[in-house]
Amino acid sequence: MKHYEQLKSVFDRINHINHFLSLGSWDNAVMIPQGSMTARSEATSELVKIVSEIMKSPQTRELLDQAEQESMITGWDEANLREMKRSLDSYNKVDTEILVEKSKAASECEAAWREYRSKNDFKSLAPFMEKLIQITKKQASQLKEDGQSLYEALLDTYEPGLKVEKIDILFNDLKKFLPEAIQSITEKQATWEPVEPLVVPAEIQKQIALDVMKHLGFDFHKGRVDESHHPFCGGVPEDVRITTRYDENNFVEGLFGIIHETGHGCYEQGLPRELLGQPVASARSLGIHEGQSLLFEKQLAKTDEFIEFLLPIFKKHLPNANISKNQLMHAILKVEPGKNRVNADEVTYPMHIVLRYEIEKAIIEDNLDIYELPGLWDQKMQEYLGISTLGDDKDGCMQDIHWMFGAYGYFPTYTLGAMNAAQIFSAYKKTNNEWAAQAKSGDFSALKNWLSDKIWSQASYYSTADELMSVATGEALNAEHFNHHIKTRYLK
Amino acid sequence: MKHYEQLKSVFDRINHINHFLSLGSWDNAVMIPQGSMTARSEATSELVKIVSEIMKSPQTRELLDQAEQESMITGWDEANLREMKRSLDSYNKVDTEILVEKSKAASECEAAWREYRSKNDFKSLAPFMEKLIQITKKQASQLKEDGQSLYEALLDTYEPGLKVEKIDILFNDLKKFLPEAIQSITEKQATWEPVEPLVVPAEIQKQIALDVMKHLGFDFHKGRVDESHHPFCGGVPEDVRITTRYDENNFVEGLFGIIHETGHGCYEQGLPRELLGQPVASARSLGIHEGQSLLFEKQLAKTDEFIEFLLPIFKKHLPNANISKNQLMHAILKVEPGKNRVNADEVTYPMHIVLRYEIEKAIIEDNLDIYELPGLWDQKMQEYLGISTLGDDKDGCMQDIHWMFGAYGYFPTYTLGAMNAAQIFSAYKKTNNEWAAQAKSGDFSALKNWLSDKIWSQASYYSTADELMSVATGEALNAEHFNHHIKTRYLK
Repeated sequence: MKHYEQLKSVFDRINHINHFLSLGSWDNAVMIPQGSMTARSEATSELVKIVSEIMKSPQTRELLDQAEQESMITGWDEANLREMKRSLDSYNKVDTEILVEKSKAASECEAAWREYRSKNDFKSLAPFMEKLIQITKKQASQLKEDGQSLYEALLDTYEPGLKVEKIDILFNDLKKFLPEAIQSITEKQATWEPVEPLVVPAEIQKQIALDVMKHLGFDFHKGRVDESHHPFCGGVPEDVRITTRYDENNFVEGLFGIIHETGHGCYEQGLPRELLGQPVASARSLGIHEGQSLLFEKQLAKTDEFIEFLLPIFKKHLPNANISKNQLMHAILKVEPGKNRVNADEVTYPMHIVLRYEIEKAIIEDNLDIYELPGLWDQKMQEYLGISTLGDDKDGCMQDIHWMFGAYGYFPTYTLGAMNAAQIFSAYKKTNNEWAAQAKSGDFSALKNWLSDKIWSQASYYSTADELMSVATGEALNAEHFNHHIKTRYLK
Repeated sequence: MKHYEQLKSVFDRINHINHFLSLGSWDNAVMIPQGSMTARSEATSELVKIVSEIMKSPQTRELLDQAEQESMITGWDEANLREMKRSLDSYNKVDTEILVEKSKAASECEAAWREYRSKNDFKSLAPFMEKLIQITKKQASQLKEDGQSLYEALLDTYEPGLKVEKIDILFNDLKKFLPEAIQSITEKQATWEPVEPLVVPAEIQKQIALDVMKHLGFDFHKGRVDESHHPFCGGVPEDVRITTRYDENNFVEGLFGIIHETGHGCYEQGLPRELLGQPVASARSLGIHEGQSLLFEKQLAKTDEFIEFLLPIFKKHLPNANISKNQLMHAILKVEPGKNRVNADEVTYPMHIVLRYEIEKAIIEDNLDIYELPGLWDQKMQEYLGISTLGDDKDGCMQDIHWMFGAYGYFPTYTLGAMNAAQIFSAYKKTNNEWAAQAKSGDFSALKNWLSDKIWSQASYYSTADELMSVATGEALNAEHFNHHIKTRYLK
């Protein structure tokens, strides 16, 4: 196993350099003074270049070839070697010039987006998107393996092994079920007795959030929490850095943002320590990652039991507010179709994703004329959520950043995450009759142990998310659990 | 100039990697969770190794040799080439094994110091110091050039070109003057009318400090301020990060800490932008750096005029405290010999340095038996400051971290800084009759412009601090201005 061991050292080196790239990108979002971005971005390019040199060097490739000839590589090492190969392959399949060209086109498109979105000016943005799409398609054609479509080649970078056929089955189930469910739920919620909206000062929200994070078992010894404009989970598994933001008129955004990022963070903190830095010790896929955050945020934290657990924490920190459980419930469970994906509730959210999936597939596969985007967006919004975005591209097809930096194939992972979360939580509940009582009392240790055992500690041991899900939950991913969850929570 | 230009790119690369090393060390002091240090330190070693590989590669040396043959390299480029050579030479003079061995011995000694200092147990620490001293002497013997002593070889790494002979002259002047001055000043201050000590809550101190930093012209667009256990100025010239700490019973520590670090920060922010990243664009030396921080903290901020400027700021932020100018003055100008260097006033401080200088020279040059250190320390403390540290090594010879990580030759730069500050401020005042009125009104732009012109923008253009001082102030560094300053401020 000499060559395999040497190859492990190469990936250790890369991991150490990536450590600083992660630190830099956290610092960019949370700490950096505005005028220091140029120096940071130049320094970042240098480290990216060093990683690329190592990944593309003939020596690294030779080590891999030699390691693959070695016998006795089994179990986790075998899985690691598979992930090493995957990583090297995807690095080496695309010409450096294309990556450089894409990175340039992406910077330009993102800058144009920042300018034209605020002006609601899609026509001026379109040429930048068009250029970026062309180069992304070139990238896809180099990534593409036999039997893959162009779109699948992009999808694969976020969700290894996932096929369009599978997404179509899952999303068709949602399309059949959700539009009607949304209608029934909003009608039902229209009959709610009105409650006083809860205003929670930012400082109090912070204390509540810290209390909840401690109960959820975030390891502050190897992580921290800060504020940033967009909540995220960054850093490295040994130093997980999550952020949120606080709006005193909307405590759900801040608190459930924190709970969401804590889910991501616990996954990172739960990856197998002995192998940290090696490809096999990384999270399996974006969909599995989102599965953990949504399990915490939606499956767990919106249950009646969790709201019962939250109530005394709110009362403790707001002793004079006389808070009722209904005040929390209405804020936490409100369903309402809207133009915006980011703030959407869990029932309408998947339809935002289905819409984006269908459009981005058409862009990559069917040469959709980019100037038709606003019209198509509006048409699908009307069809799926009964809302028109005509004339409001700012909050229509220009609302998200993903396409602006060339991330096509990313959107489906959000809804795969929601389905993963429902299926995982459902499997978990079957193993633990006490889960409801435990949740009510703020004891999440059994849940965390189970997740750690079934998902977190498995990292990338299995080759695909579907394999991991099958082993962890006893069945391949399907829409059944998510649909059942929505019915049970909102229509019972 | 082809090879010179190539060499510049090499130093740009190093600068980009150092950017992340600086970010990492700031983060270590301010942000990092305790349990994440191991991952950080492994990642740091990787970047250090990459820098070392570049600096020690035959290609880099060859580029330097070729660049030195090129004609037409003049002015700043010529100075840059000189600094490049200096940097490469000092990197290559010492065997890698010695640096590795020293780094290991330093880690062990520092860890032992943290353990045994709190136990006041010098005897247990001594073997670790002894080992580190031996390897530091080996390092010095490889660094040493013709005509240099071992100690000078170490000194040179902090203060290029400085000779023991020069320090001896400067410090002998201090030794003649200060002990008697201290006596007279403490006698004079004993007659002060007592005032109520000022207690300032940390939150208010922060607001005062920010107000003062803005007046001093710290560029928050390219820098930030945080809190840490030990105040420091870190980051990079494009992103200067200073820190302080706040003690509500001692506002001078926090505020004057900030003013001190702001001096360091303004120097960094004032380095020539066009050349940033190149060796010639770095600060000239530690003594010049400390000259800027002490000019802000001691020369400027302890003047009667600056205290007049501070008074309304204090009153604004503490509207109910009825603060008198005397309350500020007594806290800011109090002179009192003590065991501790870090908190010493500007009059007694240099004697702490003279003591350390004499002892560390004896350690490196005269094979001082390390077990004699506590006795020698006590003897010199009694002689210079009338205080015994017998039996209290914790606050005697074990108080500082410098020797514990092998930094011999560093201490003199503190007092060179104090002398630089006095001489620079004296030269400045001669050019601007309005300085006192400006200081009183909080207008420091003329001072900053002058410093920028004479010192900051000169970076490492001149080969030594002495050359820079001669051009900037019209004379080589001498103790005259410092002694005059002490007399004028405290004995008039």
